[in-house]
Amino acid sequence: MTDKFDPLDSGTIPRFAGLSTFMRLPVAEPSEVDIAILGVPFDLGTTNRAGTRHGPRELRNQSSLMRRVHHVTGLSPYDRARVADCGDVVIDPFDLMRSLDIITAQYAGVREAGALPLTGGGDHLITLPILRGLAKDGPVGLIQFDAHSDTYDSFFNCSRYNHGTPFRRAIEEGLVDPKRFVQIGLRGAISDAGNYDYARSVGVRIIFIEELVARGVEDVMAEARAIVGNKPTYVTFDIDGIDPSQAPGTGTPEIGGFSTREAQQMVRLLDGLDLIGADLVEVAPPFDPSGLTALTGATIMFELLCVLAGVVESKGTR
Amino acid sequence: MTDKFDPLDSGTIPRFAGLSTFMRLPVAEPSEVDIAILGVPFDLGTTNRAGTRHGPRELRNQSSLMRRVHHVTGLSPYDRARVADCGDVVIDPFDLMRSLDIITAQYAGVREAGALPLTGGGDHLITLPILRGLAKDGPVGLIQFDAHSDTYDSFFNCSRYNHGTPFRRAIEEGLVDPKRFVQIGLRGAISDAGNYDYARSVGVRIIFIEELVARGVEDVMAEARAIVGNKPTYVTFDIDGIDPSQAPGTGTPEIGGFSTREAQQMVRLLDGLDLIGADLVEVAPPFDPSGLTALTGATIMFELLCVLAGVVESKGTR
Amino acid sequence: MTDKFDPLDSGTIPRFAGLSTFMRLPVAEPSEVDIAILGVPFDLGTTNRAGTRHGPRELRNQSSLMRRVHHVTGLSPYDRARVADCGDVVIDPFDLMRSLDIITAQYAGVREAGALPLTGGGDHLITLPILRGLAKDGPVGLIQFDAHSDTYDSFFNCSRYNHGTPFRRAIEEGLVDPKRFVQIGLRGAISDAGNYDYARSVGVRIIFIEELVARGVEDVMAEARAIVGNKPTYVTFDIDGIDPSQAPGTGTPEIGGFSTREAQQMVRLLDGLDLIGADLVEVAPPFDPSGLTALTGATIMFELLCVLAGVVESKGTR
Amino acid sequence: MTDKFDPLDSGTIPRFAGLSTFMRLPVAEPSEVDIAILGVPFDLGTTNRAGTRHGPRELRNQSSLMRRVHHVTGLSPYDRARVADCGDVVIDPFDLMRSLDIITAQYAGVREAGALPLTGGGDHLITLPILRGLAKDGPVGLIQFDAHSDTYDSFFNCSRYNHGTPFRRAIEEGLVDPKRFVQIGLRGAISDAGNYDYARSVGVRIIFIEELVARGVEDVMAEARAIVGNKPTYVTFDIDGIDPSQAPGTGTPEIGGFSTREAQQMVRLLDGLDLIGADLVEVAPPFDPSGLTALTGATIMFELLCVLAGVVESKGTR
Amino acid sequence: MTDKFDPLDSGTIPRFAGLSTFMRLPVAEPSEVDIAILGVPFDLGTTNRAGTRHGPRELRNQSSLMRRVHHVTGLSPYDRARVADCGDVVIDPFDLMRSLDIITAQYAGVREAGALPLTGGGDHLITLPILRGLAKDGPVGLIQFDAHSDTYDSFFNCSRYNHGTPFRRAIEEGLVDPKRFVQIGLRGAISDAGNYDYARSVGVRIIFIEELVARGVEDVMAEARAIVGNKPTYVTFDIDGIDPSQAPGTGTPEIGGFSTREAQQMVRLLDGLDLIGADLVEVAPPFDPSGLTALTGATIMFELLCVLAGVVESKGTR
Amino acid sequence: MTDKFDPLDSGTIPRFAGLSTFMRLPVAEPSEVDIAILGVPFDLGTTNRAGTRHGPRELRNQSSLMRRVHHVTGLSPYDRARVADCGDVVIDPFDLMRSLDIITAQYAGVREAGALPLTGGGDHLITLPILRGLAKDGPVGLIQFDAHSDTYDSFFNCSRYNHGTPFRRAIEEGLVDPKRFVQIGLRGAISDAGNYDYARSVGVRIIFIEELVARGVEDVMAEARAIVGNKPTYVTFDIDGIDPSQAPGTGTPEIGGFSTREAQQMVRLLDGLDLIGADLVEVAPPFDPSGLTALTGATIMFELLCVLAGVVESKGTR
Repeated sequence: MTDKFDPLDSGTIPRFAGLSTFMRLPVAEPSEVDIAILGVPFDLGTTNRAGTRHGPRELRNQSSLMRRVHHVTGLSPYDRARVADCGDVVIDPFDLMRSLDIITAQYAGVREAGALPLTGGGDHLITLPILRGLAKDGPVGLIQFDAHSDTYDSFFNCSRYNHGTPFRRAIEEGLVDPKRFVQIGLRGAISDAGNYDYARSVGVRIIFIEELVARGVEDVMAEARAIVGNKPTYVTFDIDGIDPSQAPGTGTPEIGGFSTREAQQMVRLLDGLDLIGADLVEVAPPFDPSGLTALTGATIMFELLCVLAGVVESKGTR
Repeated sequence: MTDKFDPLDSGTIPRFAGLSTFMRLPVAEPSEVDIAILGVPFDLGTTNRAGTRHGPRELRNQSSLMRRVHHVTGLSPYDRARVADCGDVVIDPFDLMRSLDIITAQYAGVREAGALPLTGGGDHLITLPILRGLAKDGPVGLIQFDAHSDTYDSFFNCSRYNHGTPFRRAIEEGLVDPKRFVQIGLRGAISDAGNYDYARSVGVRIIFIEELVARGVEDVMAEARAIVGNKPTYVTFDIDGIDPSQAPGTGTPEIGGFSTREAQQMVRLLDGLDLIGADLVEVAPPFDPSGLTALTGATIMFELLCVLAGVVESKGTR
Repeated sequence: MTDKFDPLDSGTIPRFAGLSTFMRLPVAEPSEVDIAILGVPFDLGTTNRAGTRHGPRELRNQSSLMRRVHHVTGLSPYDRARVADCGDVVIDPFDLMRSLDIITAQYAGVREAGALPLTGGGDHLITLPILRGLAKDGPVGLIQFDAHSDTYDSFFNCSRYNHGTPFRRAIEEGLVDPKRFVQIGLRGAISDAGNYDYARSVGVRIIFIEELVARGVEDVMAEARAIVGNKPTYVTFDIDGIDPSQAPGTGTPEIGGFSTREAQQMVRLLDGLDLIGADLVEVAPPFDPSGLTALTGATIMFELLCVLAGVVESKGTR
Repeated sequence: MTDKFDPLDSGTIPRFAGLSTFMRLPVAEPSEVDIAILGVPFDLGTTNRAGTRHGPRELRNQSSLMRRVHHVTGLSPYDRARVADCGDVVIDPFDLMRSLDIITAQYAGVREAGALPLTGGGDHLITLPILRGLAKDGPVGLIQFDAHSDTYDSFFNCSRYNHGTPFRRAIEEGLVDPKRFVQIGLRGAISDAGNYDYARSVGVRIIFIEELVARGVEDVMAEARAIVGNKPTYVTFDIDGIDPSQAPGTGTPEIGGFSTREAQQMVRLLDGLDLIGADLVEVAPPFDPSGLTALTGATIMFELLCVLAGVVESKGTR
Repeated sequence: MTDKFDPLDSGTIPRFAGLSTFMRLPVAEPSEVDIAILGVPFDLGTTNRAGTRHGPRELRNQSSLMRRVHHVTGLSPYDRARVADCGDVVIDPFDLMRSLDIITAQYAGVREAGALPLTGGGDHLITLPILRGLAKDGPVGLIQFDAHSDTYDSFFNCSRYNHGTPFRRAIEEGLVDPKRFVQIGLRGAISDAGNYDYARSVGVRIIFIEELVARGVEDVMAEARAIVGNKPTYVTFDIDGIDPSQAPGTGTPEIGGFSTREAQQMVRLLDGLDLIGADLVEVAPPFDPSGLTALTGATIMFELLCVLAGVVESKGTR
Repeated sequence: MTDKFDPLDSGTIPRFAGLSTFMRLPVAEPSEVDIAILGVPFDLGTTNRAGTRHGPRELRNQSSLMRRVHHVTGLSPYDRARVADCGDVVIDPFDLMRSLDIITAQYAGVREAGALPLTGGGDHLITLPILRGLAKDGPVGLIQFDAHSDTYDSFFNCSRYNHGTPFRRAIEEGLVDPKRFVQIGLRGAISDAGNYDYARSVGVRIIFIEELVARGVEDVMAEARAIVGNKPTYVTFDIDGIDPSQAPGTGTPEIGGFSTREAQQMVRLLDGLDLIGADLVEVAPPFDPSGLTALTGATIMFELLCVLAGVVESKGTR
């Protein structure tokens, strides 16, 4: 690795100084790096409280608090992979479907450039076009940390594309293999008793928060790893999976979530999987007066980055 | 008038108690009243900071601070007209164009019911479908209090319907007579030197904040009254016309606006015009930590209500 | 059940639209329903930080995020019982004792109407007049989730009725059977070493947070269920029992509380008891900048509602 | 004067250090000083949004920003009079009437000690017991800066003592001479067209904000000075007289108020009157997220202090 | 001009998207442009409430709301000059004196590169090292918009370099010609009656807010222009000159300031002067919950930019 | 004990009334008491977000919620020791090194007066001069609750004294015995893989949060007690050790911390050690909109006070 893709050193340039980029990294093109961090400032799929369009900016701001070396592994992702801030996907705020196409195209480009994408959203609908861009070689496995299943069919009679539906679409479109799909942390009342029927009928494994608490993080993650196996897998992390005391700034908070401690432990247990990318979605800054949600989100992104850097290193691509 | 359409009495039921309706009024159908207050929780036309979808709820909450009798005129609108909260227009958060049609239909219904509509928005695009519903007998006059002209042609190459374009569309569609259209309080940098060209070319009178300050409120309003004359006229009040110190919670704040004092004086000087309805738009609660914007908005709605009640009384319809 | 008492469908009417009622339910009289949800906007019993007078309004606002079907049981309370928002009790903000009488009368009416009351407060003193209205057939059992015992004798030498005293009064007045009374989650420094003496002397079972943590929720709730037995029992839930990170907006927060996860599990373990009503108190919106406290409170109310619906169903009254 | 009653020097002790007292003054008894600054943490008279019980603490905190010498006069009140923080009046939060008696007794004591009281409230009802304590030699004159007249007869049918009634009671009790009573800045809708009838019938001079704006501050204050003449006069300043953009944190804000600039100019024009005391009321910190209201209040208190110091100096009592 | 130095077009790239730079401009070196916008994240000179170290980041964030063309002149600064974001000066948070040297060196470099600097601070002490870097050809004129004179000698007995002293040092060091130095908007109590003596004794013209209000903006600015004449002049704008209702987030707010309207008018009246640079200082985001202060600051920076662009154009340097 | 050092009784003087002191205690000199509570309003050692200079004031404000008797032990510290608020250390905001000397001198004085100091900070650098003042008889043991090791050598090439370095300096200066030094709760990415090398090389025991979670509080504290043994030991508690959901208002928050429950249990397990003082640092009110951080800090201070009172009692000094 070269110094070219090192974060600004906070012992030389204070954290409050300098332009705000993800992890204080340089700006670069996906073709220059192993891991491309992108923002997708999009909330057109939001059913209730919008605001995730402002997510990438605040995730960047709070990521100025991140450092280089993971305290448990003693490893720095920047020693294992070239990483940069590859900017925001420029969506069209008045055209949901066109925006999905723009996102798809951008991630297809990241894939072609040979980089693994790490995304800061954006509402959860963005994972659908990201998967469209990445899953070119057949359905991928999916590990979803979330309070909600997001496998609704439609809302308002006609809306098939919103942040409650991405994974139903992804399965229907052959982007995700439902047998290699696990959802962790679900909870909260649902609109209809049959809301989980589709997911279950196609083989998605749903792990409610109650099961997670009862079995513990290690046991659940062992199962999750077994479900996706050693084939290509994507990771999507909805910040509302975390308890709203630690992530209040989101559109549809649900009390009783998993803790950041548990979240960190779960992400670390992704190590060794064949990951093709990851995202952190649903940070809505207008509902985050203390900035804690963006800080939590930025830290989860750092944890995901460390795991992705392991993938890069293990593949020996660089 | 009957007691049936009186606000809750704060000397009997504390302001913090009871369901939250506009002005603490009863809920009714437009056909039952002279003035129908409606909410339009819509922000699909917003270019930057969304949130006006939550406007009607907070306008209702803060309107619990309103009282019955105007201190300058000594008159109560509730003695002059039957007024009620007629609920929210139920828009479709994933279909901008369908939502416009829903709004149009609802306001056509209000018009047919014989009530004057007073609206709490919602972003400024809602005025377009409101006018579509109301301007059935030819173009109407329009008095617009605002920081922005909202007469852009389009954004993002293809979006012709957003909160920067409603009045261009309204003129093109023959809903508003540009010769009877005056915009008051405009200011702030513009994207292109030609941004005002269309409005000026069709005869819209633009009064910048600088001119308002130089000439004073009375002189400007005398001109505004002359422009619209004694023919049917609609009033649209964008909260961002007011200085952001008094209305920070809005999507595109511009410093240097007119004060609430000036705003109140200007609305009072609408008295005697042939008004067919009025709206107060662009209150975005997620950006309003102190609640002041919604309070300002609710008070301007009360001032507009007093003027509309005068119209009802003068027409002797009841 | 009829559709008449169904919440607004968020797949048709967005959560941000429509008048704000508890759980998006219709407004009705207690005589029309099995479970009557009421607000008691009262904070005259507060020793330090007032503000719970605004609790019912914000609980209603945040309850717009609730859905229909409990994800663990797969049951909807609205399929098991007729439920409605029965409005606020109209207290007198300048007369504490008169307000208590007003509350008592209202709840006596709810009882006579045959409905089970579910209340959003208000400070904790309101549970006293609620019990006066309900406990007409002799002392009832009581399960109290709380950080404080609220069994003080008096404050300021002469105040025997405030939010630190309701349960002493309730025992003295024969409303609550102290042998069938359990307090869960107590903690925090006390004014005097003898503060718990009265409660213990009459047989109240106090379970400190330390005991709850050591034994676990299931063991403690088994004991609590045994204490109240299968006789009529009331449930009172003070939001300050929950850790202030999950419920900061309350008058006398105490760090180190139980979590929402634990709270939800405890409420679910009330299933099958002979409950005569429940309340959720001490939400103080002026101290809740993120709205999380009201969201937590509204969700606990939903959990209580699910348990009460089970009571209705099991009694076969409808 | 001695150094004993000097504020802490911010060039030696930073403003953020040290115990928080009014104006960073020493704590003393009224008998030791010429001007006694007191807090009255009381909000039992509040009709809607409580919170002024926390007013004195935040006024003290923000007054740490005050300095010694008035920039217009070049005079320091601390060179002209002995001034100290004389602590808070200890009210009884569960007994409104008893609290009024406590306040009365305390101010009678200040008067007997020979000090002029300057008060930080507290809701506006506190001015009634203050006047009871001070007006021992017959009715006094009164200059009231306010958005509201506060001369209601009663609320809720039986409450004759709340923050909407103090000045009716003060006139009835012979504490204030209504012919020497002027109210400046009134505005906002009223509950009933006759709300001002009582005040006008007994001779109170009401100056609405509209008149103030039209005539200007100097003209209005010349009239106010003439009304109270050179006899003993009290000054009461309700922070809600000031526009809510400059003082949002108050119980019943009304848009369109006078500015702090105008407020400062008006207070300065009190110079030379025979003042017997002054108060600044209705600062409600829970509704003041930026702290601006308490800062505004503390600065108005400093302006009042400067005028009171002139009274002390001119009387040559020290 | 080339397109290379155009801001991002908000009709193509939404304001919420993209990296956050001043005015959405490209990042460049001073040598590439006519006007270099820099951030100085520094608050080591703050006597009370720190936080301006975070000023540049929030000024950048809020400047995403700026547009291209001034609505009064119809001119775009980007058509008249090449402008870019030249990044932050990297100060040393533990060494005040070393930081001053770093700033001096950076601005000397800007001057040598031939660009005019426009700065977003930072506390007011930064103007001293900026002037050290720029005033290489003898003392310059200075127009200061501010609530405070900042000509103290020292604090805490030994601190001669803090945000209360920069202009005394600048005069002593021969950087500023006191006869060509005017301070506008001063107000607020002072520590000692002699605080203004030094400034007056060396010929600085102090215009208190009271004089500004009495004479009006145009008259005062005519005098200010005469004072500095047509020789090189620097402009420093302390955000606390503006009323705290429009700029609450600052370290030492003083009520009763000039309005943003007046501020904009004053800055526009700088047109035609021989300006060598300008700064906007004292924005402290931690005290700015609504973001209004940073928005106000960013807009004043845009107004200053327009004036500086006129200087560039008139000099025909490009 | 005498009543002289009792906190104000909240049953007589409401918590919102009276001057704000630590625990509502009287103000006294260290020589008058057994335990001296001091504030150190200092943030000159902060690398990123300043604000702890305001910590002591808000800790005092929130400590008004504390009561007398610990609910687990049934003991009141005020029955076991004389305790008072001994005011703030008056630091010099422009001279870091001089401020350290001032703090050292003050704590040497406390030691000589025979009192145990309990401190509310201030950033973590203050613990260095506190130890200089206290560790006169050789190196002491140290128990540190924290997210960070604070044993860096320097920042910015030359800063050896900041809040990342105090414990390296303390070891180097012979104030702390590294063999009797344990750090609990560390976590978060580090700047360099060698960041912990120094601490480990000299024998400091580092217990990461992961180990704490795995082993449990009791086991870890047993080890901690064994490490420091029964020799003089100091306790330093950095609020950022606690999870940021429970303490968001701090300069360098790290998600995944220990809970307040765990914190309280750990502090209680200090009972019986030979403690010479304790501090609670890094509360930064500008980043604490809900006040929860200061409340948490004040409560931890109360827990520490209870342990220190046990030391006083066991030594039989009084």
